[in-house]
Amino acid sequence: MALLNSIRGPADVRRMPEAELPALAEEIRELLVRTVSRTGGHLGPNLGVVELTIALHRVFNSPHDRILWDTGHQAYVHKLLTGRVEGFERLRQRGGLSGYPSRAESEHDVIENSHASTALCYADGLAKAYALTGQTDRAVVAVIGDGALTGGMAWEAVNNIAAAKDRPVIIVVNDNGRSYAPTVGGIADLLSGLRTAGPYERFLAWGKNTVRQTPVVGQPVYDLVHAVKAGLKDLIAPQALFSGMGLKYLGPVDGHDVAAVEAALRRARGFGGPVLVHCVTEKGRGWAPAETDEQDKMHSYRRTDPVTGGRIPATTPTWTEVFGAELGALAAERPELVAITAAMLEPTGLEQMQAKFPERVFDVGIAEQHAVTSAAGLAMGGVHPVVCLYATFLNRAFDQLLLDVALHSCGVTFVLDRAGVTGDDGPSHNGMWDLSILQVVPGLRIAAPRDAATLRRALREAVEVTDGPTVIRFPKGTPSADLAVASQVDGLDVLVAGEPEDVLMVCVGALAGLGRQVADELAEAGLGVTVVDPVWVRPVNPAIAGLARRHRVVVTLEDGGRAGGVGAAIAQELRDARVTTPVHTMGLPQRFLEHGKRAEVLADCGLTTPEITRRIKEVVPARRRSR
Amino acid sequence: MALLNSIRGPADVRRMPEAELPALAEEIRELLVRTVSRTGGHLGPNLGVVELTIALHRVFNSPHDRILWDTGHQAYVHKLLTGRVEGFERLRQRGGLSGYPSRAESEHDVIENSHASTALCYADGLAKAYALTGQTDRAVVAVIGDGALTGGMAWEAVNNIAAAKDRPVIIVVNDNGRSYAPTVGGIADLLSGLRTAGPYERFLAWGKNTVRQTPVVGQPVYDLVHAVKAGLKDLIAPQALFSGMGLKYLGPVDGHDVAAVEAALRRARGFGGPVLVHCVTEKGRGWAPAETDEQDKMHSYRRTDPVTGGRIPATTPTWTEVFGAELGALAAERPELVAITAAMLEPTGLEQMQAKFPERVFDVGIAEQHAVTSAAGLAMGGVHPVVCLYATFLNRAFDQLLLDVALHSCGVTFVLDRAGVTGDDGPSHNGMWDLSILQVVPGLRIAAPRDAATLRRALREAVEVTDGPTVIRFPKGTPSADLAVASQVDGLDVLVAGEPEDVLMVCVGALAGLGRQVADELAEAGLGVTVVDPVWVRPVNPAIAGLARRHRVVVTLEDGGRAGGVGAAIAQELRDARVTTPVHTMGLPQRFLEHGKRAEVLADCGLTTPEITRRIKEVVPARRRSR
Repeated sequence: MALLNSIRGPADVRRMPEAELPALAEEIRELLVRTVSRTGGHLGPNLGVVELTIALHRVFNSPHDRILWDTGHQAYVHKLLTGRVEGFERLRQRGGLSGYPSRAESEHDVIENSHASTALCYADGLAKAYALTGQTDRAVVAVIGDGALTGGMAWEAVNNIAAAKDRPVIIVVNDNGRSYAPTVGGIADLLSGLRTAGPYERFLAWGKNTVRQTPVVGQPVYDLVHAVKAGLKDLIAPQALFSGMGLKYLGPVDGHDVAAVEAALRRARGFGGPVLVHCVTEKGRGWAPAETDEQDKMHSYRRTDPVTGGRIPATTPTWTEVFGAELGALAAERPELVAITAAMLEPTGLEQMQAKFPERVFDVGIAEQHAVTSAAGLAMGGVHPVVCLYATFLNRAFDQLLLDVALHSCGVTFVLDRAGVTGDDGPSHNGMWDLSILQVVPGLRIAAPRDAATLRRALREAVEVTDGPTVIRFPKGTPSADLAVASQVDGLDVLVAGEPEDVLMVCVGALAGLGRQVADELAEAGLGVTVVDPVWVRPVNPAIAGLARRHRVVVTLEDGGRAGGVGAAIAQELRDARVTTPVHTMGLPQRFLEHGKRAEVLADCGLTTPEITRRIKEVVPARRRSR
Repeated sequence: MALLNSIRGPADVRRMPEAELPALAEEIRELLVRTVSRTGGHLGPNLGVVELTIALHRVFNSPHDRILWDTGHQAYVHKLLTGRVEGFERLRQRGGLSGYPSRAESEHDVIENSHASTALCYADGLAKAYALTGQTDRAVVAVIGDGALTGGMAWEAVNNIAAAKDRPVIIVVNDNGRSYAPTVGGIADLLSGLRTAGPYERFLAWGKNTVRQTPVVGQPVYDLVHAVKAGLKDLIAPQALFSGMGLKYLGPVDGHDVAAVEAALRRARGFGGPVLVHCVTEKGRGWAPAETDEQDKMHSYRRTDPVTGGRIPATTPTWTEVFGAELGALAAERPELVAITAAMLEPTGLEQMQAKFPERVFDVGIAEQHAVTSAAGLAMGGVHPVVCLYATFLNRAFDQLLLDVALHSCGVTFVLDRAGVTGDDGPSHNGMWDLSILQVVPGLRIAAPRDAATLRRALREAVEVTDGPTVIRFPKGTPSADLAVASQVDGLDVLVAGEPEDVLMVCVGALAGLGRQVADELAEAGLGVTVVDPVWVRPVNPAIAGLARRHRVVVTLEDGGRAGGVGAAIAQELRDARVTTPVHTMGLPQRFLEHGKRAEVLADCGLTTPEITRRIKEVVPARRRSR
């Protein structure tokens, strides 16, 4: 660690003799493996960009020049080279370094959002601003993976960047042939064509041989071949994809050869217009367990053994695993079921269905919009799609869910994993928006199962619906044991029947267990709490109004933002039904939540048994003498 | 109209002798001009697709084959050829034909959503479903304009369609070089390159001459030239953009030559894989006023003179014009202001600023995601972007507003035109979602000006904000005269001071005038109504809680969906402040609203003076004897 410890910032990287760079790279890889296998985090992507990041900081002068990381999980090496070696020990821990770029941490960080495909858009904006304000000596460099190029907004950006021939933007494509899993689609084919440069090389070789075999060949034929070589080079290789749009193409470059990358970047900087540098890298490079992992090259691990790279298995199935197993079973029963993932096959639990019915599982790339609208097309064609996304990524396809699916009454099931507080990955990964924005979608039904049994049941109900969309959302982690149901009231699961009927608690999803604990606490204080779980939280079950009339206070509890969430919908329903029982909605405050463990973040938001108990005691009016 | 009247469906189009097709096209154009100049609607786009649509219905057998129209405003000719000549007289009128495809109207209509760039996604889904269910004799054809190709989701779709070499999808690019205005960006450059086919033609001509000049040329040189012609044809032209991704390219075809288009479509159908047919058309074709309109080729007109094509000028400035003039003035005062439009320069009122400061106005194409995230980049680079969109299209960039702008605390002003009920264009154009989904965005400030004066003031306040996003939203049409303010309470405009303080009405934006009328009506009934307008509706002005305590009922009134809207936010704020005054939230019901005039649709939703008056009387509790 002698070399790495000597680096306090990018200037030290630039000052380092070229001969020492391989040793620096080695030290960085050692630290990455040691730290991430302990803290969890994105290992494979960062092992792949060690040399590329060194070269970037040697050619560009951050923060005067701006280096933008698309999907910030590939920025660990950047953190290490910009003065954050010490904090790295506490990566992704509360109070430690964020797992993504963070402007609070460093002036070298620009983009905090960890949703993919954004960097080229920011770059276009920055370049426009620098051109307008005369800051033309500042380079704008965006590093984007080949996986993120499958996202539409990257293409919207390319369309704009390419159009301004004299406004420089340097796009570095970090091409490792995969995002989480191997990158899919035409873009992948194209990059693969570029990587081998096959057609162009073959054509040149063939042309040369052909000319050589010609007995008498005059100068014009040489001219012809020469013209083909020189003038048409950019058109013959598939790089025409980029050059046809007006983007200069440089590459392919070996992304693990610092000198080669530096040379390409210097050439790009000197070009003075929009340019794409195509770097070929290997995800997981330099650590055998990642290099040989065919599934995802150790993309992201919670905890691994630093020697073997083995995962530490969970003792009980996670929410994802419960869903994946049930979907696999359902797919065998229902031939009309298909599944869609946006480059997250394994993280959303689709391996079982993929193994059994590969032709019925579609990975569309990091392309949530296409995932949703192609699902509408699939439904129109007579099958039932199950669209599997992280909750936070559904925000990318809100318009498509609203108009392409709901307006057309298409039977599509959305399964939102990582809903609610996820914690470790910081504000842009928390799935705290879905329960609010989805309330506006006409005809949409939403289930928030509380445990494995209700998840299985809700999924089976959802795939029966053919006249509109349904959503099932559940959190990260492992469900607690199935909760017993005391009784049922018009489809509401009553988990605790309060006596007397002081407080009606309506619990959403996995917070039902918390509701039960609160009821126990309040029982000791002499307050009767009825705990109900509607499971299907939209539309609001009308039985809630009836129960609310009989209680003195209604409390709602959800793992989502309070603004316009389930609690707000229940409050509106009660107002419309002229029920005057006071309502208290508990959930997440409407702010960006800093990274930490899920339990820590929930506690910060007051969603713990003692805190909820305290707040309810405060709001329950003193019992009247006569009832 | 003899030929057109003989067509009851596509079979009649197929049966028609080729010689009669020009006359049919002429009849269609006459009817389009006559009807649309009276009803308003999309004229230019439909004049451009007359022959293309005829050819489509001759080659494909709708509805067995599926013809998908991207941005359905180009589907008028399709309506005429599928049995809807009679209803066409009442285009866009209540009870008449919709201005977009409508499945309720015809089995030949598939996509009702009029947001752009969706058709290729639907097509991919339909093709997948047909392949899975053995309906492989059904062709899937998507017609997409070059403008819609600038939208990212179209590229997500191309990436997926191109990847499946044996799953046929026929993409017809209707290339008229413009969407609303001329299409911008690299895609436009590329299509323009294809249109002229310059490089390829020049190369072939040059190669031929070169070879001819060579004194002695053996067979191998002929081979070389031949290979260049045949094998490399797809690579030399910029069509490599498509072929590099695995998409067969056919074209360019003259889109006004029915026989040529038919031939290309038949070849495409026979190909058996993903294929792109590039049709070059002329927007506004066949009607002189449109052909010579350099601005937007008569893209969309409310009412025009069928002879001259002249617009009938409004007597007072529209919301758009008030905004555009004030932005133009502000831009002169503040050099750091820039504006962004997503292919809607004139419809969002940017001509004045464009005329004065063209280098500070950016048209990014139909690419709302890029509009928003590049605005974040612009803000980071030190300027203040004003992003001008129709309210409904902001749904396309919700994630980008939330994470790329708000999470990064970027000073960006969003101006949402056509907010609330727009009416004529049907459910997907109503801007009834923004006030709800934007409530979840941390730190966002929202203004809903009630008249021209408050719009100007709000805009001036918004561009001062540098630490986060602001939104200003206003409806379609013309603001009523500026309303007098009786007094101010902590930043709330009090329009009517109620005496006694029975009802507190909180009015949002342009509905303030309605609130005043209701107050007058209720005064006659002896009820005192205080009418306030916060103008800035998010965050909720705390003064509302104080006023609410003094009144017996709170009524909120907004031109947006009730679920999670401003009324819901006020209700939550009052609950949190333990204000127990009952709240009644009035707004739009959470359903898709059918097309009709704005006033008709608002009336359907109960947002008229008599209906609101009636409902308030119903909910105000009988006055207690002692207060």
